[in-house]
Amino acid sequence: MRLTHMMLRAARTNRAGSATVAGQRRRNWQEFAARVARLAGGLKRLGIGPGERVAILALNGDRYLEFFFAVPWAGAVFVPINTRLAVPEIAFWLNDSGSQALFIDDAFLPLLPRLKPALATVRHLVYLGDGPAPAGLTHYEALHDGAAAADDAERSGHDPAGIFYTGGTTGQSKGVMLSHANLHANALNAAIGLRFDRHTNWLHAAPMFHLADGTSTFAVTLMGGAHCFIPKFDAGELLAAIERYRASHSCLVPTMINLVVNHPDLPGRDIASFRGVLYGASPMPEALIRKALDVMPRVGFFHGYGQSECSPMLTLMGPEYHVLEGPNAGKLTSCGQPAAGVEVKICDQAGNELPRGQIGEIRARGANVMLGYWNQPELTRRTIVDGWIRTGDGATMDEDGFVYIVDRLKDMIISGGENVYSAEVEDALYRHPAVLECAVIGIPHDKWGEQVHAIVRLRPAATAGAEALIRHCKALIANYKCPRSVAFVEAPLPLSGAGKILKTELRKPYWSGRRKQVN
Amino acid sequence: MRLTHMMLRAARTNRAGSATVAGQRRRNWQEFAARVARLAGGLKRLGIGPGERVAILALNGDRYLEFFFAVPWAGAVFVPINTRLAVPEIAFWLNDSGSQALFIDDAFLPLLPRLKPALATVRHLVYLGDGPAPAGLTHYEALHDGAAAADDAERSGHDPAGIFYTGGTTGQSKGVMLSHANLHANALNAAIGLRFDRHTNWLHAAPMFHLADGTSTFAVTLMGGAHCFIPKFDAGELLAAIERYRASHSCLVPTMINLVVNHPDLPGRDIASFRGVLYGASPMPEALIRKALDVMPRVGFFHGYGQSECSPMLTLMGPEYHVLEGPNAGKLTSCGQPAAGVEVKICDQAGNELPRGQIGEIRARGANVMLGYWNQPELTRRTIVDGWIRTGDGATMDEDGFVYIVDRLKDMIISGGENVYSAEVEDALYRHPAVLECAVIGIPHDKWGEQVHAIVRLRPAATAGAEALIRHCKALIANYKCPRSVAFVEAPLPLSGAGKILKTELRKPYWSGRRKQVN
Repeated sequence: MRLTHMMLRAARTNRAGSATVAGQRRRNWQEFAARVARLAGGLKRLGIGPGERVAILALNGDRYLEFFFAVPWAGAVFVPINTRLAVPEIAFWLNDSGSQALFIDDAFLPLLPRLKPALATVRHLVYLGDGPAPAGLTHYEALHDGAAAADDAERSGHDPAGIFYTGGTTGQSKGVMLSHANLHANALNAAIGLRFDRHTNWLHAAPMFHLADGTSTFAVTLMGGAHCFIPKFDAGELLAAIERYRASHSCLVPTMINLVVNHPDLPGRDIASFRGVLYGASPMPEALIRKALDVMPRVGFFHGYGQSECSPMLTLMGPEYHVLEGPNAGKLTSCGQPAAGVEVKICDQAGNELPRGQIGEIRARGANVMLGYWNQPELTRRTIVDGWIRTGDGATMDEDGFVYIVDRLKDMIISGGENVYSAEVEDALYRHPAVLECAVIGIPHDKWGEQVHAIVRLRPAATAGAEALIRHCKALIANYKCPRSVAFVEAPLPLSGAGKILKTELRKPYWSGRRKQVN
Repeated sequence: MRLTHMMLRAARTNRAGSATVAGQRRRNWQEFAARVARLAGGLKRLGIGPGERVAILALNGDRYLEFFFAVPWAGAVFVPINTRLAVPEIAFWLNDSGSQALFIDDAFLPLLPRLKPALATVRHLVYLGDGPAPAGLTHYEALHDGAAAADDAERSGHDPAGIFYTGGTTGQSKGVMLSHANLHANALNAAIGLRFDRHTNWLHAAPMFHLADGTSTFAVTLMGGAHCFIPKFDAGELLAAIERYRASHSCLVPTMINLVVNHPDLPGRDIASFRGVLYGASPMPEALIRKALDVMPRVGFFHGYGQSECSPMLTLMGPEYHVLEGPNAGKLTSCGQPAAGVEVKICDQAGNELPRGQIGEIRARGANVMLGYWNQPELTRRTIVDGWIRTGDGATMDEDGFVYIVDRLKDMIISGGENVYSAEVEDALYRHPAVLECAVIGIPHDKWGEQVHAIVRLRPAATAGAEALIRHCKALIANYKCPRSVAFVEAPLPLSGAGKILKTELRKPYWSGRRKQVN
């Protein structure tokens, strides 16, 4: 099954229903599908052939969604670029993927002078904004207007549909090749798990280049639901957009949810339409869940866990487990159970499934598992073993099949021979009322190997010293897990495109010249 | 993705939840999975190898469900036998499929003396009942008890999982080969469309050998829901079972729904748990919907359309369209819109899609479309053309993507050069208060080719003559569509395994020695 089927299904079963609402611009599914066919015609006029790559570097918007369907309609492969990258990293992604065209919006035009000289394969630049196209760029609407509608290329399920790069730095960056069938399988899993239907009105607030939001890009379309947008996450704008567009669902990470539930605009906004939040990257601390259930009582929270290599969803936990009492309580630190079409097991290094409760690596199998890494067959062979993908994430599974991420294996701290899972320490820190944001990392220690170190951003006007925070932790978790040192910062912690705190960045200053041991 | 994954998922995510409830016998998913592994071990001890066929001839029950997972767990292929067949037909299915073993219950033991001599490949008979096994048969529980748990054969998605025969007569009968991936795809489509979750408690009332019920056999399992059973449909027993087992959903056909909503036990039964009915074979006449919504106000009706070749679901219409007023009204005669993973188009004979509103053949594409007909590559090539399956069903599609079956193309009556769709005439007849059941067929006519003929069963104590019924029809539909003759019967009309009225049977006496022209 191919990606374009999703849009066709929406156009055929809900033609008059809203497809995109972006500011004053509203298009129904019939109009959307007609535009996609013409945009695909425009891509063909540019000489983009089947299997060729087309990249996009833009903030969220309706044209981004059209792009996601026009590219496969033309038979090509999309390459969404992380909007937080530096110019050399962007150039690496474009060149590594061999992208023939780049779609770019106003926010990233200033990068072009430095970017263009570094590009090896990009032949066409398409301007995605509303103003006049700068010199040398084709206007997106001209691409649309100048072309006849193309026929659906009808790619097979096994053809690649997109390449999603993971990692932000040149050396580690790898292109995850997802097929049409991969993304279609994830859409079905998401539609079941998140209970989407044609009344879903998805607010794209997390960045659209990332599959955390992309899950719903495809699943909501398949169900004939609607899409609305804010260019990028901002808690106040999110609340305003929910009210304005009557949005029903969005994807956020706990740090964003934290900002939303504490936002001064919240009480004044009408968010009655809002009923579902998919979140990931980490569990919601209990205090945050308590607050969220209190101030957003109609909203159901869904905790998803996955990775780009899995299109991305592996596990999901619905609102019925986001409770503090009753028979379903006690699962709050879990990321849920395997999605409908996914098999998950916790394995030792050799790939043998471990008994319930033991920590091991998550391995997964299903129609959602990637074709492989772009141009990296050896890495692909090491990552997908006997049909199971090695996620590199450490976790346990309980007797009910709930998965608990203990850490990215590479984020685990080994201090004095003991494994310390940073998430557990962060959870303890978050229970301190003065803590707004925090990250726990291992820093070099001559005797222990690594020392548990916390980086903390306090709430405005709150005060707490390192000693007070460490004492607070000691009351909650074992002594060896508690931070030995605390650094206070005023700026928000650096986030990845998926909204995860970038621990690699935080670790860098401490580890320069040294090498952190990775399990 | 393989069938056994569904059961494993249920066992892993809802181990303590009910899997089967049959009378006093209740098993949870962990117990169910353990039994299936041992039964598969038993099959292996019988020498059943990968890809070999194992048949079952039984009424509904928990062991039937175990059979559906034990056979693929052993790597074999199940062959569910229509319980309404005559002995030579059963023998044909068993021999044609080359089944190595037959599972049989008490209801069909009396057939064995005549059946056994006709069997060419069956080496083992397994007795599925609760009494002692008759001579020459292995007891099902002995098969279980005598074996160690086998490992999941882990068949690939492209391996055949089952052969479902269509057609009841030897000459036309063909084995529909469905793969693991086919049935898994349908289960995902059904889980989305029918909104199953682990709280679903499916009552197997329609025969389990047929995929109308089989849709939910697999989809409910995938979601970790429960299964309960009545041996075969009976309106009073259905109501008692809903109350006893707190059943939530079942599959019925309109003729069965008609019997249920008119049953004298209905007002006295507690059916508060019952909230969904999947029906098919034909639309529900408006009068029946009106009555059903009145007497079962909590029940949502889902109209599905499909065929075994498509595992089986192609389209579905949910409760929101089973309404008599409001913006969603007017779709009652439709069988809904394409399921989530299915493409449907209405085509002319050459396979070109027709404009909306025109009658043509339904063709479909999706991961649910069969591997092919067993041992009939030529018929398979004629049936699946360019990846699209020809259903042989005539239909229109409206601008909203709703499909309206006009008739099996072979059931269409051509009278005086006009196409008459029997369903339309039957719908008119059903609006007459005296009509309990009816079927409209074409019978030979020297001048017109075919004559529209109605076979009618009146309600007890009701009276209506042929002329009155014809006059009633004339007030509702065009003159050329109205019956020219009416035959009254007292016995229920003959039904197929799927609960469809067997028009081939009804036509036989009129057409002996002649040949009905098929489009």
